[in-house]
Amino acid sequence: MVLQKINDPSDLKNLSIRELETLAEEMRAFMLSVLSKHPGHFAPNFGTVELAIAVHTVFDTPRDKVIWDIGHQAYPHKLLTGRLDTFDTLRQTDGISGFLSREESKYDVFGAGHSSTSISAALGIAAARDANNDDFKVIAIIGDGGLTGGMALEALNAAGDFRKDMLVILNDNQMSISPTIGAISKHFHKLISSRGYNKLRSGAGELMEFISSDAKALAQKIEASLKPGTLFEEFGFRYFGPLDGNDLESLVPILTGIRELYGPILVHVVTKKGLGYTPAEDDPVGFYSVSGQFDLKTGKSLRPSSAIPKYTDVFSRTLIEEAKRNPRIIGVTAAMPGGTGLDKFAETFPDRCFDVGLAEQCAVTFSAGLATEGLKPVVAIYSTFLQRGYDQVLHDVCIQNLPVVFALDRAGLVGADGPTHHGVFDIAYLRSIPNMVVMAPKDENELQHLLKTALSYEMGPIAVRYPRGTGLGVELDAEPKPINIGKAEICREGEDLLIIAIGNRVYPALEAAETLSETGINTCVINARFVKPLDTTLIIDMAKEIGKVITIEDGILMGGFGSAILEALAVEGITDVRVNSLGVPDRFVEHGDVNTLYDRYGYDTQAIIRAGIALAVGA
Amino acid sequence: MVLQKINDPSDLKNLSIRELETLAEEMRAFMLSVLSKHPGHFAPNFGTVELAIAVHTVFDTPRDKVIWDIGHQAYPHKLLTGRLDTFDTLRQTDGISGFLSREESKYDVFGAGHSSTSISAALGIAAARDANNDDFKVIAIIGDGGLTGGMALEALNAAGDFRKDMLVILNDNQMSISPTIGAISKHFHKLISSRGYNKLRSGAGELMEFISSDAKALAQKIEASLKPGTLFEEFGFRYFGPLDGNDLESLVPILTGIRELYGPILVHVVTKKGLGYTPAEDDPVGFYSVSGQFDLKTGKSLRPSSAIPKYTDVFSRTLIEEAKRNPRIIGVTAAMPGGTGLDKFAETFPDRCFDVGLAEQCAVTFSAGLATEGLKPVVAIYSTFLQRGYDQVLHDVCIQNLPVVFALDRAGLVGADGPTHHGVFDIAYLRSIPNMVVMAPKDENELQHLLKTALSYEMGPIAVRYPRGTGLGVELDAEPKPINIGKAEICREGEDLLIIAIGNRVYPALEAAETLSETGINTCVINARFVKPLDTTLIIDMAKEIGKVITIEDGILMGGFGSAILEALAVEGITDVRVNSLGVPDRFVEHGDVNTLYDRYGYDTQAIIRAGIALAVGA
Repeated sequence: MVLQKINDPSDLKNLSIRELETLAEEMRAFMLSVLSKHPGHFAPNFGTVELAIAVHTVFDTPRDKVIWDIGHQAYPHKLLTGRLDTFDTLRQTDGISGFLSREESKYDVFGAGHSSTSISAALGIAAARDANNDDFKVIAIIGDGGLTGGMALEALNAAGDFRKDMLVILNDNQMSISPTIGAISKHFHKLISSRGYNKLRSGAGELMEFISSDAKALAQKIEASLKPGTLFEEFGFRYFGPLDGNDLESLVPILTGIRELYGPILVHVVTKKGLGYTPAEDDPVGFYSVSGQFDLKTGKSLRPSSAIPKYTDVFSRTLIEEAKRNPRIIGVTAAMPGGTGLDKFAETFPDRCFDVGLAEQCAVTFSAGLATEGLKPVVAIYSTFLQRGYDQVLHDVCIQNLPVVFALDRAGLVGADGPTHHGVFDIAYLRSIPNMVVMAPKDENELQHLLKTALSYEMGPIAVRYPRGTGLGVELDAEPKPINIGKAEICREGEDLLIIAIGNRVYPALEAAETLSETGINTCVINARFVKPLDTTLIIDMAKEIGKVITIEDGILMGGFGSAILEALAVEGITDVRVNSLGVPDRFVEHGDVNTLYDRYGYDTQAIIRAGIALAVGA
Repeated sequence: MVLQKINDPSDLKNLSIRELETLAEEMRAFMLSVLSKHPGHFAPNFGTVELAIAVHTVFDTPRDKVIWDIGHQAYPHKLLTGRLDTFDTLRQTDGISGFLSREESKYDVFGAGHSSTSISAALGIAAARDANNDDFKVIAIIGDGGLTGGMALEALNAAGDFRKDMLVILNDNQMSISPTIGAISKHFHKLISSRGYNKLRSGAGELMEFISSDAKALAQKIEASLKPGTLFEEFGFRYFGPLDGNDLESLVPILTGIRELYGPILVHVVTKKGLGYTPAEDDPVGFYSVSGQFDLKTGKSLRPSSAIPKYTDVFSRTLIEEAKRNPRIIGVTAAMPGGTGLDKFAETFPDRCFDVGLAEQCAVTFSAGLATEGLKPVVAIYSTFLQRGYDQVLHDVCIQNLPVVFALDRAGLVGADGPTHHGVFDIAYLRSIPNMVVMAPKDENELQHLLKTALSYEMGPIAVRYPRGTGLGVELDAEPKPINIGKAEICREGEDLLIIAIGNRVYPALEAAETLSETGINTCVINARFVKPLDTTLIIDMAKEIGKVITIEDGILMGGFGSAILEALAVEGITDVRVNSLGVPDRFVEHGDVNTLYDRYGYDTQAIIRAGIALAVGA
């Protein structure tokens, strides 16, 4: 085994290309064995094996700085940089991260779970190097999907201007999470595949045969302008490629040559997602990530399929049904049709679904534009990724009070993806924006009602946030019905203690209330449904009456839902009410099993019971 | 006067080019007379006179939709669309907006105060048009500066893919607010000016003379690829230009021709900022905006220059002095060196200041990169524009706990620029992010101490927010000294009422306290200095002791500073304390004089006095 001998990248330096190729095979086999048992990102990492090997062989890491965009393509990098032994703890509680992490390794130069950040970070590191009179190489590795994010383009523009010595490797796997959208991406693919391009280039070459030598220099210039890198050269980069990014025999010597060049350089490599595992090669979208335990031969999942629908499925189904009745409904996604359930919507309504690419800013303002013309856009997006569109939500949607619907999937803790992906900030950042309505359902049945509520609401922007994963298995009403804006519900009566819960914390609150009531603390539970506007009448009445309140949310406490309850009480001038707010404390939460994390951060059922007893006893 | 006869754009249709030229002259004279008395954006609007005339002459507005990026270039558009009579109320309390506003006019299709949004909005409107089987033209007008914003590039990419019928007019004035930074921009200027380009083009033409006709078709293709629009054609747009955007004689017929074409089209026009007023032509940066009352002949301001420094000046001076002692300090701006005071820093330390263009996302993550290498980046940015970098602050800086300094200028209400520019959300959105320290000085002297605090802090990210405009005229200590993190100060003792103020609300609180004490309500005033971490020990002790609390901040109340105080009290289990929070209510605040607005929204000195009496009497 070559792989077992690689303690760090220095062990790569003396290996032959053949040995490196063997290493690549072993790495694929190793990743396959681990990922067929444990969940993780899959296809992207099977495409970058040779790239990781080549980069660590050619460059002097960690002195040279390699910045992987997003980081879900960096498992091979992890295996080569000291994390072989811990790789089977990937994404598990207290195990290694599924993304890059500066805390985890000195080889992880810059962490990232969101896309398109690497070129900005690399440019900063290159500028710092020069300011410090230091001497090392800086390499950003970004996918063709990541390059459609505006932030990557901003950085290309600045880098072309600053002219720092830095290398951008464009890992073009012809498909980001879903087939990449957008003109830039089409451009690459056309270049690689089109006979037209090759003909044009060779035509220009032929042209040079029969023209005078004076004109020849000119013609050479012209030919140069026809390279596929024109776009990048317009930005001020020297362009090399496209290269086969899965071919170590060409990759290693070419990168070695490029290492000796200076200035902004872009190397365009083409890799194949899922390479080496046929089921993933055939279905890289399906194999973007795996949930563990699949049959190695067939690639079929071994996990028993749940009869309980995911929140995403309920969203998707409800949206499709409503869209059949309401032709104004339009779906909008930023490169996540599969994850958000808009893929099925797009199948039913191909002309009514738009994917703008990995471009959340554009998605939000594009939707604002749709709304000005009387349509009903639904931006289906992960909570964490809407952070990229914060200013657009505020400046383009909310200031103009446009009726855009935000369907925030993966709100609250998401588990294995960790701190970059937990959707715990949305309540705080959305509720402070005027005109915005913010809702969260207690279960998948209420999700359909709240989605219907959003689709029926014409007064302005409205957001519904719901968790990752399967619902609770409750019965689904046959017809979704809109709920009055700002109307909470009492789920359980009680006079000793009041729990005001929102979203996925309503059921744990009810469980806790049962236990508490058994111990003699009769507990009332309110499902708030609305973070904004709050049902202040009900909440204030009950809070005044009971006097002891627990608020609970799957979100950050600072400025969150509990904070909104405190504000409401203060506005009414109510004192004498004790409020204990449970939720995500003022820190970033690591990756891990969500139930473990709820427990660890004190907002699971047991934590509510403890808080309830403390409040009651403290009386 | 032609101008007086223009009630709406239909009145333009029958005018000759000569009459339109006269109109342009009259519009410039009119704008000059108004803007020499009232403050407003200046140079950009003197560049777009002909463009506005041509667009409204050629297109059928408001049926055809014209979307102006940013909107500070849209005064001529306002004059042509029914706002001639109210133009002298521009940007004043209850007057017309300095930007576009959907509420103000049906001709203002999409409002914008932040840059780079127009193409996304136009794409949405074009998609909606097709979904509605409607039939009109959609035109986005964007500056060369706006085009460096990632969001504009995202939209170009999506538009090239969707292939909707839409027109983007690139208004290339060779200078956005400051000379535009970045490779894209340099590219334009090179194209326009460079003899090399012209030579290359004509060379390619000559080439065609002496080659066979078969090769001629090929050579034509090659020549086409040398057009300046290559960048846009890579994105999938048909490109026309560059045209003289101040020449109605060519502009009107060419736009008329282009109107008949379909698909994504980009027209590149070159305009001159400040055109028609020599002092502005000579100094378009200085004349980016005017503060009213200047001498028409010389262009010199007639406003008496204040001996009191602006907050921006104190920031700039302090930063320069500290940077002399600390070589690790680096300045970073997103196209606002002048507004943020980094221009002077750049003069002193040209190698230690980076302008990434209108690209806040890149600015933040670029700074994160600098920080990983041990430098001390200071992102100098307006509060409202940091909203564009929200995810980068959270995901790239705070999760990795990198010691980046954020200097947030124009925090709180900014006055005449209105809802898109009020920096009232920063307290709420920054304090909910873990690892972030958030500070605000009570006056310009404390600003230097808090900036020193930020520069001395190595544990993670830290932000200091300060208001627009001049300071209070307090004495400046000779040396800035760091303040202990999280340390508030008692500014005034008292036992009947406690006012906890932050930032520019400390002095009004002190004034109110004087008046209240005269009426027998002895009022204690705390200057919190830190929104996060709060000085909970002091605040809780005093709140418990006094029992009646007013919090006051120049920021949004939902999730803001007052909310943080409520959280702190709740965590300690304190009841019996009445808290009345003053600040920006849950709505977007219009433009106008800031003192009028403080009064209108109930957080000036008088409002504090009223609140104090109500609290005291209510006891």
